[in-house]
Amino acid sequence: MKIRIGIVGYGNLGRGVEAAVSSSKDMELVALFTRRDPATIKTRTDIPVYHIDKAIEMQDKIDVMILCGGSANDLPVQTPEMAKYFNVIDSFDTHAKIPEHFAKVDKESKASGKVSVISVGWDPGMFSLNRLYGQAILPNGNDYTFWGKGVSQGHSDAIRRIDGVKDAKQYTIPVPAALESVRNGENPTLTTRQKHLRECFVVAEDGADKAAIEKAIVTMPNYFADYDTTVHFISQEELDRNHCGIPHGGIVFRTGTTGFDNENKHVIEYKLTLDSNPEFTSSVLVAYARAAYRFSKEGQSGCKTVFDIAPAYLHPETPEELRKNLL
Amino acid sequence: MKIRIGIVGYGNLGRGVEAAVSSSKDMELVALFTRRDPATIKTRTDIPVYHIDKAIEMQDKIDVMILCGGSANDLPVQTPEMAKYFNVIDSFDTHAKIPEHFAKVDKESKASGKVSVISVGWDPGMFSLNRLYGQAILPNGNDYTFWGKGVSQGHSDAIRRIDGVKDAKQYTIPVPAALESVRNGENPTLTTRQKHLRECFVVAEDGADKAAIEKAIVTMPNYFADYDTTVHFISQEELDRNHCGIPHGGIVFRTGTTGFDNENKHVIEYKLTLDSNPEFTSSVLVAYARAAYRFSKEGQSGCKTVFDIAPAYLHPETPEELRKNLL
Repeated sequence: MKIRIGIVGYGNLGRGVEAAVSSSKDMELVALFTRRDPATIKTRTDIPVYHIDKAIEMQDKIDVMILCGGSANDLPVQTPEMAKYFNVIDSFDTHAKIPEHFAKVDKESKASGKVSVISVGWDPGMFSLNRLYGQAILPNGNDYTFWGKGVSQGHSDAIRRIDGVKDAKQYTIPVPAALESVRNGENPTLTTRQKHLRECFVVAEDGADKAAIEKAIVTMPNYFADYDTTVHFISQEELDRNHCGIPHGGIVFRTGTTGFDNENKHVIEYKLTLDSNPEFTSSVLVAYARAAYRFSKEGQSGCKTVFDIAPAYLHPETPEELRKNLL
Repeated sequence: MKIRIGIVGYGNLGRGVEAAVSSSKDMELVALFTRRDPATIKTRTDIPVYHIDKAIEMQDKIDVMILCGGSANDLPVQTPEMAKYFNVIDSFDTHAKIPEHFAKVDKESKASGKVSVISVGWDPGMFSLNRLYGQAILPNGNDYTFWGKGVSQGHSDAIRRIDGVKDAKQYTIPVPAALESVRNGENPTLTTRQKHLRECFVVAEDGADKAAIEKAIVTMPNYFADYDTTVHFISQEELDRNHCGIPHGGIVFRTGTTGFDNENKHVIEYKLTLDSNPEFTSSVLVAYARAAYRFSKEGQSGCKTVFDIAPAYLHPETPEELRKNLL
C-alpha cells in the first residue's frame, strides 16, 4: 500500500511536491487543497483539487499532508490547524520563530495523536543537519554557512519597489576569497561584506534615472548597504531569457582541530548546487513525509525536526538493505 | 555526571579516542584495556591501563566501551564479546561483512540488554549517511564516492613487500577531470582508472633495481594495474620528513534531477579534508558513544548503525537548544 499524500497550496513548492511524489514509487498523490476557487486550478498530474475547508472530511484518505504555504503568514496558522487532523510536514523557515512554531505544532499533534515535522528543506533542513553533525564530531572548531550562488526573492522584491524599476532579480554570491580561506582551515573571522556579494539585474522604466536607481540599491539599509553590490541594467527580454530560473544553494563548513596539541586540521564541507530552489526543498519535504508516515505507523505522536529523525526513516529500502547497500 | 568511557586497544585509533574524549566536556576516560602487558603502555592522559581480561570486572564503572582494534582480526571477535557486558562502539569497515557482523553483535547486545553501534567513522560512517540522505532526497540520480587525497595503508604495505623496497607511502588521489564532470551534473560513467590516481613515494634499498621496482608496482594486479600510477624514488629522510602524516578524505556526491521533465539538475557534495584519518574517525566514534549512552539510558538495546541514530543524539546540547541554535 502506498503512502497517500495531500498537498496544501499550489505555488512553486506545491508544484515541486507534486513532481517529487510522482517520482517516488512508494507514494501517491490523493488531493490538492487550496484557498482559491478549486475550479481555477489545473494540476499537472490531474489530482483532484478541493477547497481547503474540505480537508477535514478526507482525514482517512490521507496519510501525510504536506503544507506548501509561506512562513510569514500561512504556516504559523495552517500547520497547527492541520496538525489537529493529519500527520503534517512544513518548511517553516523563519529561524528565530522556530521554537514558538514548534511548541504550537507539538501541542496540537500530541493532542491529536499525529506526527508533525517542521522546518524541513535545505536551510533550515539539510544545512542544519550538517551544522549539527559537524559540531558533534569536531567540538573544537568553527561553523561557516554561505548561501548562493542563488536568487534571493526578498532582495529582488526590494529592488522592484524602487521608483523607476520595472523588474529585477538579485543573486547572492559567496566571496571566493572567503571560501578559500575557510577551505584552507584558516578559521577566518568574516564580516558580512567579506562573506557574500550581491549582483543585481535591473530593468528600468523608460526614461528612468539609472544612476539614482543604482544609488538607491547599493545604499539600501539591511538589504545592500553592508555588501559589495553590483548593478547591471538590462532589457526585460534579457531578464526573461537569462534570469528566469530560481537556482540556489550554498555551503556549510565545519572546520576544526584534533589531537592533544590541536595539531591536526579537518575540514567538512557540505555543498548544494541547485537549479531549482523550490523543487529541491520539495524533494526534502517528500523524503521526510516518508519518515512521518513511518513514525505514525509506530504509534508515535508530536512534533519533530530533522534533528529527531534517524536517517533510515527517509529511505524507501529496509534497514537490512540499507546496511548491505549503503553503509 | 559525565559519560564514563573505556577504550580497548591503543593504536592510532585508541590514541585518537583518548584525545577526542579529553576535549568532550560531558565525558571522562575511565580505563584503557589492552592485550599487551599493561606495564609497557604509557597513555598520554595517565588513564589506568588494564589487561583486557580485567574488563569484565569493571562493568559498573564504564558506560560505553569504544573498541579501537582492526576490522580484519580484532573486531569480529571483540565487539560481540564485549557486547555481552558493555554498551560498545566500533569502526568495523569491511563493507561486505557488515550484515554478518551486525547480526552477531545485535544478538549479544539484545541478550545483555546493552546498546551497540557498529561501523562508525567516515566510510563507513559519515559517507554512508550522505549516500543515504542523497538517495532519499534525489531518487532520480547517481551516487559517486571518491577517496583521497590520502594515504592507503594497504597499498603502502603492498609496495613494501616488493624486493628491494625499504619503505613506501602511497596516496590515492581523485582524478580532477572526473570530479569536474560529476560537479557539472554530467552523470559520467567512470572506470576505475578514470576515478582515481595512485602516487607512490618509495625508498629503495642501496643498489636495488629501481626500474624493476617501478614495473612491479605499476603492474601489480588489483592494487595498481587498473590505475594510472606514478612512482617517485626518494630518500628515507625525505619520506620521514614530508610523508609522515596520515591524511585522508574524499567526496560523496549525489547528483540528480527534479521536475516532470527532469529539467532541473542538483548536485549534493559532501567533502572531507582530513589531516589525520585515525583522529577524525576517533572523533566520530566519540560522538556516537554519546548516542549509545543516551539510547542505553532510554532502556533501548541491540545493535544500531549511523542510519538508525537521530542526529540530536550526537550533540551535547538539549533538543530545545539545538532547535534554537542550529536549525
